[in-house]
Amino acid sequence: MTRYGAQFGPDITFLGVDPVDLDDAAALAEADVVVVGAPFDGGTSHRPGTRFGPMAIRQTDYLPQDGSRPHLALRVDSLQDVRVVDAGDVEMPPGEIERALGALEQAVYAVASAGAVPLVLGGDHSIALPDATGVARHLGFGKVSMIHFDAHADTGDIEFGSLYGHGQPMRRLIESGALRGDRFLQIGLRGYWPGPETLGWMAEQNMRSYEMTEIGKRGLEACLDEAFEIALDECDAVFLSVDIDVCDPGHAPGTGTPEPGGLTSRQLLDAVRRICRELPVAGIDVVEVSPPYDHAEITAYLANRVCLEALAGLAVRKHGISHDPAGPLLEGR
Amino acid sequence: MTRYGAQFGPDITFLGVDPVDLDDAAALAEADVVVVGAPFDGGTSHRPGTRFGPMAIRQTDYLPQDGSRPHLALRVDSLQDVRVVDAGDVEMPPGEIERALGALEQAVYAVASAGAVPLVLGGDHSIALPDATGVARHLGFGKVSMIHFDAHADTGDIEFGSLYGHGQPMRRLIESGALRGDRFLQIGLRGYWPGPETLGWMAEQNMRSYEMTEIGKRGLEACLDEAFEIALDECDAVFLSVDIDVCDPGHAPGTGTPEPGGLTSRQLLDAVRRICRELPVAGIDVVEVSPPYDHAEITAYLANRVCLEALAGLAVRKHGISHDPAGPLLEGR
Amino acid sequence: MTRYGAQFGPDITFLGVDPVDLDDAAALAEADVVVVGAPFDGGTSHRPGTRFGPMAIRQTDYLPQDGSRPHLALRVDSLQDVRVVDAGDVEMPPGEIERALGALEQAVYAVASAGAVPLVLGGDHSIALPDATGVARHLGFGKVSMIHFDAHADTGDIEFGSLYGHGQPMRRLIESGALRGDRFLQIGLRGYWPGPETLGWMAEQNMRSYEMTEIGKRGLEACLDEAFEIALDECDAVFLSVDIDVCDPGHAPGTGTPEPGGLTSRQLLDAVRRICRELPVAGIDVVEVSPPYDHAEITAYLANRVCLEALAGLAVRKHGISHDPAGPLLEGR
Amino acid sequence: MTRYGAQFGPDITFLGVDPVDLDDAAALAEADVVVVGAPFDGGTSHRPGTRFGPMAIRQTDYLPQDGSRPHLALRVDSLQDVRVVDAGDVEMPPGEIERALGALEQAVYAVASAGAVPLVLGGDHSIALPDATGVARHLGFGKVSMIHFDAHADTGDIEFGSLYGHGQPMRRLIESGALRGDRFLQIGLRGYWPGPETLGWMAEQNMRSYEMTEIGKRGLEACLDEAFEIALDECDAVFLSVDIDVCDPGHAPGTGTPEPGGLTSRQLLDAVRRICRELPVAGIDVVEVSPPYDHAEITAYLANRVCLEALAGLAVRKHGISHDPAGPLLEGR
Amino acid sequence: MTRYGAQFGPDITFLGVDPVDLDDAAALAEADVVVVGAPFDGGTSHRPGTRFGPMAIRQTDYLPQDGSRPHLALRVDSLQDVRVVDAGDVEMPPGEIERALGALEQAVYAVASAGAVPLVLGGDHSIALPDATGVARHLGFGKVSMIHFDAHADTGDIEFGSLYGHGQPMRRLIESGALRGDRFLQIGLRGYWPGPETLGWMAEQNMRSYEMTEIGKRGLEACLDEAFEIALDECDAVFLSVDIDVCDPGHAPGTGTPEPGGLTSRQLLDAVRRICRELPVAGIDVVEVSPPYDHAEITAYLANRVCLEALAGLAVRKHGISHDPAGPLLEGR
Amino acid sequence: MTRYGAQFGPDITFLGVDPVDLDDAAALAEADVVVVGAPFDGGTSHRPGTRFGPMAIRQTDYLPQDGSRPHLALRVDSLQDVRVVDAGDVEMPPGEIERALGALEQAVYAVASAGAVPLVLGGDHSIALPDATGVARHLGFGKVSMIHFDAHADTGDIEFGSLYGHGQPMRRLIESGALRGDRFLQIGLRGYWPGPETLGWMAEQNMRSYEMTEIGKRGLEACLDEAFEIALDECDAVFLSVDIDVCDPGHAPGTGTPEPGGLTSRQLLDAVRRICRELPVAGIDVVEVSPPYDHAEITAYLANRVCLEALAGLAVRKHGISHDPAGPLLEGR
Repeated sequence: MTRYGAQFGPDITFLGVDPVDLDDAAALAEADVVVVGAPFDGGTSHRPGTRFGPMAIRQTDYLPQDGSRPHLALRVDSLQDVRVVDAGDVEMPPGEIERALGALEQAVYAVASAGAVPLVLGGDHSIALPDATGVARHLGFGKVSMIHFDAHADTGDIEFGSLYGHGQPMRRLIESGALRGDRFLQIGLRGYWPGPETLGWMAEQNMRSYEMTEIGKRGLEACLDEAFEIALDECDAVFLSVDIDVCDPGHAPGTGTPEPGGLTSRQLLDAVRRICRELPVAGIDVVEVSPPYDHAEITAYLANRVCLEALAGLAVRKHGISHDPAGPLLEGR
Repeated sequence: MTRYGAQFGPDITFLGVDPVDLDDAAALAEADVVVVGAPFDGGTSHRPGTRFGPMAIRQTDYLPQDGSRPHLALRVDSLQDVRVVDAGDVEMPPGEIERALGALEQAVYAVASAGAVPLVLGGDHSIALPDATGVARHLGFGKVSMIHFDAHADTGDIEFGSLYGHGQPMRRLIESGALRGDRFLQIGLRGYWPGPETLGWMAEQNMRSYEMTEIGKRGLEACLDEAFEIALDECDAVFLSVDIDVCDPGHAPGTGTPEPGGLTSRQLLDAVRRICRELPVAGIDVVEVSPPYDHAEITAYLANRVCLEALAGLAVRKHGISHDPAGPLLEGR
Repeated sequence: MTRYGAQFGPDITFLGVDPVDLDDAAALAEADVVVVGAPFDGGTSHRPGTRFGPMAIRQTDYLPQDGSRPHLALRVDSLQDVRVVDAGDVEMPPGEIERALGALEQAVYAVASAGAVPLVLGGDHSIALPDATGVARHLGFGKVSMIHFDAHADTGDIEFGSLYGHGQPMRRLIESGALRGDRFLQIGLRGYWPGPETLGWMAEQNMRSYEMTEIGKRGLEACLDEAFEIALDECDAVFLSVDIDVCDPGHAPGTGTPEPGGLTSRQLLDAVRRICRELPVAGIDVVEVSPPYDHAEITAYLANRVCLEALAGLAVRKHGISHDPAGPLLEGR
Repeated sequence: MTRYGAQFGPDITFLGVDPVDLDDAAALAEADVVVVGAPFDGGTSHRPGTRFGPMAIRQTDYLPQDGSRPHLALRVDSLQDVRVVDAGDVEMPPGEIERALGALEQAVYAVASAGAVPLVLGGDHSIALPDATGVARHLGFGKVSMIHFDAHADTGDIEFGSLYGHGQPMRRLIESGALRGDRFLQIGLRGYWPGPETLGWMAEQNMRSYEMTEIGKRGLEACLDEAFEIALDECDAVFLSVDIDVCDPGHAPGTGTPEPGGLTSRQLLDAVRRICRELPVAGIDVVEVSPPYDHAEITAYLANRVCLEALAGLAVRKHGISHDPAGPLLEGR
Repeated sequence: MTRYGAQFGPDITFLGVDPVDLDDAAALAEADVVVVGAPFDGGTSHRPGTRFGPMAIRQTDYLPQDGSRPHLALRVDSLQDVRVVDAGDVEMPPGEIERALGALEQAVYAVASAGAVPLVLGGDHSIALPDATGVARHLGFGKVSMIHFDAHADTGDIEFGSLYGHGQPMRRLIESGALRGDRFLQIGLRGYWPGPETLGWMAEQNMRSYEMTEIGKRGLEACLDEAFEIALDECDAVFLSVDIDVCDPGHAPGTGTPEPGGLTSRQLLDAVRRICRELPVAGIDVVEVSPPYDHAEITAYLANRVCLEALAGLAVRKHGISHDPAGPLLEGR
Repeated sequence: MTRYGAQFGPDITFLGVDPVDLDDAAALAEADVVVVGAPFDGGTSHRPGTRFGPMAIRQTDYLPQDGSRPHLALRVDSLQDVRVVDAGDVEMPPGEIERALGALEQAVYAVASAGAVPLVLGGDHSIALPDATGVARHLGFGKVSMIHFDAHADTGDIEFGSLYGHGQPMRRLIESGALRGDRFLQIGLRGYWPGPETLGWMAEQNMRSYEMTEIGKRGLEACLDEAFEIALDECDAVFLSVDIDVCDPGHAPGTGTPEPGGLTSRQLLDAVRRICRELPVAGIDVVEVSPPYDHAEITAYLANRVCLEALAGLAVRKHGISHDPAGPLLEGR
């Protein structure tokens, strides 16, 4: 699996971190996190454009692309205190979803089996199937719990006559046994999909889905507390899947299936930071960023920061923390 | 009054519900809710474009236009558990406001007198005059209270030399006796209009207006509790008028007179759902969606969801509810 | 210093207030607040466009440009109850930052020494250096505290080989002695800049910076309470510097260096209102509004309202208040 | 008729020329050209927004708003060699088309009867009715020919039940006798409107309409030669009405009813320049500029330049020309 | 093959013509032209979005959606003088290109074998393979010549590891024998693709490709004259494939692979009109319209007009013409 | 002068060509053309944004970034048949124009003195001063003629109190003696600037400026023929400066000072190709591309193609040509 580079646009890396080739075992062995681009929108049911997600997430910043991001509140460097490298994109032809997802699964598995955390930049949410499967192949089927931020449950059965697509990966993951339904935590659901039959199937799997009404009443922190407990029960690791449409369209317009009434960007960033700091995260994907529908890059900025908060959380988990992020920023005051 | 169809664009219905002709008494008699398009921006004082509001609100969704929307939290179908049909647009020439508003009043009255709830898709807010008048003509002048979400009081007297326009409908409604000033509940006001004279007139009418500072201090829920009590005092029914600019421009940029510092979309959706679930709503309009100023359709999505939350609330009111929307989404967890 | 007019576009004034010439001592003497345009983006490190900020902030409104804005909640007129005039733009060539900032400092000093509050419309944040210096030259170095809303600390040392730029003004202000580091209150910081060295310098200066994590935990009101106390300790006056990027990009996309996870527009408006009402504000700037990246003018609207809330606060401070802005809007209810 | 100022936005004048009050007879008497804003879109059949046309056309330029525009090719100053003043807007409520058009006719007539050329900035094309009528009332019904650039004939009879609107002014002008059908020259027509009945009516009036197929075959210059001859036959003056949609949508996207396959902007500018230089133009309007649909102001720039080319042509007609605009630009080469 | 309706959005027809079901043999038998939507962008190599092409092309117009379009220059009705019906979309899952193209081929074949002209609305250019194959299956392999407007030759062999995609259909058509290489006429090519190897293959097939340099030198009309002769040699019918990117990006920005230096929209419209009027056209597709990248709908308008000009040409071919479209528009002048 | 990389965004090269360090004499010696990025907009008088020009021009393409671009018409590879390398950006602080231009001049001189052609990607047109000076320092003051495509003469004296800016470089170049006024060829001028005084100065220098009226009458080819003759008279080399605003805003909206009525993109591409093929071009800059004002990247595409046409012309000049670009594209037909 030689380095492919970029399917669309120039071959850049996430904010300037070092590139890596997935065939280079020595390089992988030294990495804590490996960024993988999944420039795929062949699974979208409505507005496309997520093929340009990896390109946008990698480079959207006003700071230099220098492979360093000192986190103001946590006092770790998101790109230095964990060793982050970027494997480039996986080639994913939009019209050949099975081949595309298969190639991605191989790449994710290569990363996971090298002991690193794959950070997959989508791409539409159909990639969660190979992302989580690739991790589970290494850590064991049924051993990885899922924390899934999304407006949608993504547990559809067949759409447009196909088993694969961005509304279905979570069903496939449970059906295959890669993930346990009763260790599946969904946060931010809302709207008018899916219907009763699918909800019935989800209940049968013992999935735990936090709809926005519940989150509004109990508070996101309390929901996370509960979810963390479930996630760690009999599972060794957590896969974190962040669909950017979990946020309100006002905060994340550049996505394919926006659903009003979502989280604020502040809520999402804090939650991602906390998850990666407190839980044994073994894989991450950030999906559904669609640059053609973005404005002033605000959705791409948000997704870039979701990655940086996740990485900062991993860095704290690795190195510990001496500074209280909720206290005064500067010493002495 | 034969079916006119669409003033702009193809003749579509709200998310694919059945069309209806306002002359078809039998069909009307079976309906719970009749959608009416009011594609009018001849009453706008600044940015126009709301003529394309009905077209946008009807079709903005990523789900199939199949006349079914199962509500995730409430477990009712917004389009099936109430019988929703769509009467198409009323022809409203932009340059002839009195004729246009008169035609709309006739259509709304036809719906109301058939026993159905008119759901009018604006259009600018000048349509609230015929909308609420049409309902009050059926239920009785003074018998319908008003819950009015808006950044603006819309109680101006004369603008650009005219009695009619989107800043004045609430004054005309009270002056005509269609609605009682002391059963007029306004939620979300803010900004720098109107001036003292108009505020004096409003106080004389005993209107109850919740400005954002009060909402911020007391909380929206508490304000709604109080408003509900007033609304039900000596009135039999409620008209719900939702100006999308009640939301912050970050959540609803596609409108004509955006005023920073408004509600979040989550707040608005929850409030609308609650109103239609708890109060005897007899008419609804959703106004001031201006697609030319929208981005990535986020304002149109929000307005579409305002309608779906209202319809879901009506469905719960009709059928009751067994599921606690603030509890776990799925049974068994 | 004869009136320059407008560097870009027609010579308009802030919402139609009277123009003033900075050489006209009599006119200045009567003014409470003098608007000064600083159409400069030669200090930006990334997306430019703030040169069009003054033009946008001055005129973005749906109401008539008539020099009157009755504040709904506070019951003062933002433009009448304080005497506001507009001195036009300072000519600021984008490629000559030292000359440009020097000319602005002279204009601000002329306003301050006439006893009026300068309200400077940026432009990028490099203008805070001349803005606060101009005020401090009149009121005394070390006598003016700073309340600084921003996503960024703006305490960088040298950028692109230059001492001047929008990431550095706060360092220059402290280094010169114009402002005291221990009376520097920063609100809304977040993200991944600056790094440890600069934070060390800031701590040495005894700056007090409220990062969003702290604000999220303690609440903005509590942070402001504390900040007010520090601000008034041994200082006679306050300079208020509002970088619009303190708000979340969803609320303020039209800016150069957007950082997700910020304040809502409601929070910013309330805070600015409170500051100008409760503290002896002697100078204000509103910066980093970049119209080319705005959508539907929502960022320009927000900045215009930041000015109007500040002015309303000043008016209340001058005239007192009889109406409780958090109570019912209308008398009798 | 006291100066109204601006219906939308600040009270600016065309590129900084002096303002004038239509009641100020002395000032009018000295003017060659009086700009009049007609911020009206109550006559549009599809996309609105032309109410912001006058504001955009007046100020869209990268050069200073200093009341001077030296024409590079013609070596006259478009704003100095003819005396141009700006009367501001006529108040035109969007919902009251008859009242609005009546007020405009009065303003145009006031200009024409003072001996000046009205240059009316639209607004939608319904304003051509009062524009040309106002001129004809002064110069005599039937004495003014029309040169009409447009994709559309604008000879509809009744639309949305109304006699007035942007598709009908030319019919009303001929019906009233203000203009002669056989001195009506239309340039740039194309597309799929109007149908046979209206074309029959047009033929009966002996109108001369140059569809793009004819222009493509014969060349625009030859068509203009012929049109000029007709225009001057038994008529004393010419009214020039420029609908910006005569240009291809690629050159003028910011308009309400774009029709592909139109003139280039170069063709339009040259034609307008030539008409005003060679014919006795007594009135001009520039219409259908819709800023909400514009991009990067290119349509507003084009309309601004249409005005400047017209004015330059008038200046040449007044002062003569010594420089050959098609020869080398600079002397000596 | 029961009517599928619309894959995205409401089920509308091309400008309001009657719907048809491909299983309804009687209805098909009466049709001259059957519109088929191919909402597919799974074959795009860069910017996606053409899945929304059919929806945009069908409805983008400012005129009523009434199934009638009287052609101004040709004096035929594009939708009435040929009997046009609309079969809705073919369901084309973006991630399953072979299945999607296969389903489309069946639909096109159904139309062609019923004796009607399929007018396929793309969709990306990968659909040309099933479009032309479907027609050739009915009329005979090698019996249909191709006139292909495009910036690109679309004769690539394998892209992203796939035989199918929008850069390859023309090669597949020739390889399969559906079309003859020496009856393949390409118009408007330019740019930097394909390379020598592919050009060599094209030369071997005896394709005739008119690059923009040749068109610029000889004129488009002369090139068409020559192309028509080739097209009719030993072939009975012509397939017309119009990639909207043959036009300059200034005229058609809403496309995936824009290549500067193309035709004007006027040139394209005239050419299409002429082809359908003078040649025995048996099938048409209009492809590569990508609404997410469009502005003010100008690309969608152009594509809609390409259809209308084609239909008008067919109508003239069917009914003859009495009016000279390059002569005066109106009789008597 | 060590490689700086990129001032904004990731360190990419022009379409993937190899990077080079200006200090690497050996690498420079092998290069035919060296790309230099000049990300500067500190010299703009109106809309900024050209700082992002180099980033956009380098990567805007739908083809792979693989350092190869086979030219369809000329049958040379624009990036292979001349050896093109990319030196990255020069650091140009926006607020320090003299320092910024000085640094650029050094970089250009380094390229020119190594015997390569600098291809400078702007940036605003103020960079033409260092660009042409850097070349003239190597080849001799007065020995290089200038072919300058632009809507504007750029011969202003002092603007905003500064000698430097994008309206003045051509004057500074002639004043310093770097270039001869009588070997200065300007193509595409139009509009309303500069005024008589500056035109007088230009005439004194014996500049030859082709305004659009002359180009329209004589044709661009004839003007170029004449210009070529002047350019080669007593000069050894030519500097080609392309301001993208020479094109009509419909073809190039993404620029700071758009002037309607310009060249088509086709005209510009053909002219640039011809110049580089027929004249001894020693330096090139492509300026005034402003991505914030672009739409769908069409201006960036145009500028990228201007570079590719120039390079193709250089390749033909180096290698000769066997294929007639105006003949049939493919052999055998």
